[in-house]
Amino acid sequence: MIRVLLVHDTYLLRTALAFLLGREPDLEVTSASWQRAADLARALRPHVCVVDMDSPEAGGPRGLRELSGNGSENGNGSGNGSGNVDALGEAAAGGGGRAALLALASAGRPGPLRRAYEEKALGYLSKNASPDRLVEGIRHVAKGERFIDEALGFGFLEAAEIPLTRRELSVLSLAAEGASVGEIARSLHLSNGTVRNYMAAITRKTGARNRVDAIRISRGAGWV
Amino acid sequence: MIRVLLVHDTYLLRTALAFLLGREPDLEVTSASWQRAADLARALRPHVCVVDMDSPEAGGPRGLRELSGNGSENGNGSGNGSGNVDALGEAAAGGGGRAALLALASAGRPGPLRRAYEEKALGYLSKNASPDRLVEGIRHVAKGERFIDEALGFGFLEAAEIPLTRRELSVLSLAAEGASVGEIARSLHLSNGTVRNYMAAITRKTGARNRVDAIRISRGAGWV
Repeated sequence: MIRVLLVHDTYLLRTALAFLLGREPDLEVTSASWQRAADLARALRPHVCVVDMDSPEAGGPRGLRELSGNGSENGNGSGNGSGNVDALGEAAAGGGGRAALLALASAGRPGPLRRAYEEKALGYLSKNASPDRLVEGIRHVAKGERFIDEALGFGFLEAAEIPLTRRELSVLSLAAEGASVGEIARSLHLSNGTVRNYMAAITRKTGARNRVDAIRISRGAGWV
Repeated sequence: MIRVLLVHDTYLLRTALAFLLGREPDLEVTSASWQRAADLARALRPHVCVVDMDSPEAGGPRGLRELSGNGSENGNGSGNGSGNVDALGEAAAGGGGRAALLALASAGRPGPLRRAYEEKALGYLSKNASPDRLVEGIRHVAKGERFIDEALGFGFLEAAEIPLTRRELSVLSLAAEGASVGEIARSLHLSNGTVRNYMAAITRKTGARNRVDAIRISRGAGWV
């Protein structure tokens, strides 16, 4: 029996998908919002976590990092005693003592795909795949096998080629939240001029017409 | 038998939800992306269209307006001979010769809720409702009865209180796409100064810190 935790923010949709998956004789499926996912994972010790990467919560404080148990300095995790890792199922079938991650992503948005990769997801499935493919993917990652949906291939290429540096992403994230140049400068301990230089580089690298356009393009790609 | 067309952009999720709904003995459910929805509606003549309002496509050229058959000048529609209206099921159980709309919306986003209202949706359900409530809603609107999810109550209040005028929304939409003041001015046949005045009014009315913040706030609410 494969214990599956399905994480998606929309109750109506995750309930329907969990119901469909739960009809498979070898799957035992529970669904949760991102908000409750980490707590449920600790309680249920699932073998596989199927996660919607497009939710803004996936990158948040209760998001993927906590769920995957990679929050500790020791990326490997098993046996280091830090809460999440222990709780996330030492008996898990996939990947070294913790639940295997299967990321649901959109082909046109490389940002979430990259975040899933950074959190060592074992499976990657397009949200436009069929439920049967999802079942297939769950069985693969439960055995510790990598599973990659061909529809996401190009997205991976884009995800590998993120044009922005980490510092530029920090500047852009703040700008996208509506912070002014002065506020960004104070927040990141930079001068106003340096922030303006970063914004100019961001605009150029994303091929944007201006700052607002750069934010729009980066949002669309899921970088911020 | 109630024929239902379920419109959602994510194949994985709409398939699962259609499967769950299709288990009800009185529902015959087909699902489609927004892209294909209007064509399918013409072919299937559903009694009820369940539509995901959060998709950017819902407001687009192949979106709600075409689906609901309200695209003609004559809002009433029946018998005026213009393509969509005729095709969308004269024999429909709900609302005067066309499919009844049941809108799936998010409580925190008044914009999509308002668009559904403007297109005369008969039902409104939160995406955090249970599948059982959706079934209930479908049966209500199929009989031509209004169905409103209590969870959307506050959203309706906000939807009624949109602070921006139609002209301000046009300016904001272009700005959100990255257009400069000059480009917006040329596109809407206004002077640069007038566009700046509109942007200032938008920023003030949305309680934003600046133009980027105004775009962020309006996007979050689903106004643009």
